[in-house]
Amino acid sequence: MLRFDQNGLIPAIIQDASTGEVLMLGYMNAESLRRTLESGQVWFYSRSRQELWHKGATSGSFLNVKAILKDCDEDALVAKVEPLGPVCHTGNRSCFYRTLDEDGPS
Amino acid sequence: MLRFDQNGLIPAIIQDASTGEVLMLGYMNAESLRRTLESGQVWFYSRSRQELWHKGATSGSFLNVKAILKDCDEDALVAKVEPLGPVCHTGNRSCFYRTLDEDGPS
Repeated sequence: MLRFDQNGLIPAIIQDASTGEVLMLGYMNAESLRRTLESGQVWFYSRSRQELWHKGATSGSFLNVKAILKDCDEDALVAKVEPLGPVCHTGNRSCFYRTLDEDGPS
Repeated sequence: MLRFDQNGLIPAIIQDASTGEVLMLGYMNAESLRRTLESGQVWFYSRSRQELWHKGATSGSFLNVKAILKDCDEDALVAKVEPLGPVCHTGNRSCFYRTLDEDGPS
């Protein structure tokens, strides 16, 4: 039903279920989506490491899933989550912590 | 500075600036981003039509840009917008109007 792209991936927008803040954009393949649904925590497919990625496995900042939405043409997801810690590897609550023209540490 | 993908695109999450609702996921190339910044309204690059797309040009539901954020690794954007009408071609306010397991007209 879902439309995965030519690499077998679908983008998943991660949104804080309580505040509505967009926390990050990740990518899932069919298996990571299956694990997400089964475990109730977000699993991605890491494009850089080319492996399944249980978000929070190293940081402890797991993402507990409250709801998953799909878009009209079924090629994008929104996961509403309760984050158990900062989502960004920088320690920020969200990966989207800078405006477009803003520099600074990434 | 921004990292566009191998097709010259960057995903842009469109979020209602007032309510926080995620409205859609679109893709921008460098030119559509330039036009977005210049005009203050969202321009995408349509992957299916392979052309620049002034969102709202046919429906009237233009997206007035309030802020644009980039993520930590600079390969995704969030545009906070004021939508001038329903964003989805189905007439729904958001393209994300169904849960993952929900069927119905797309």
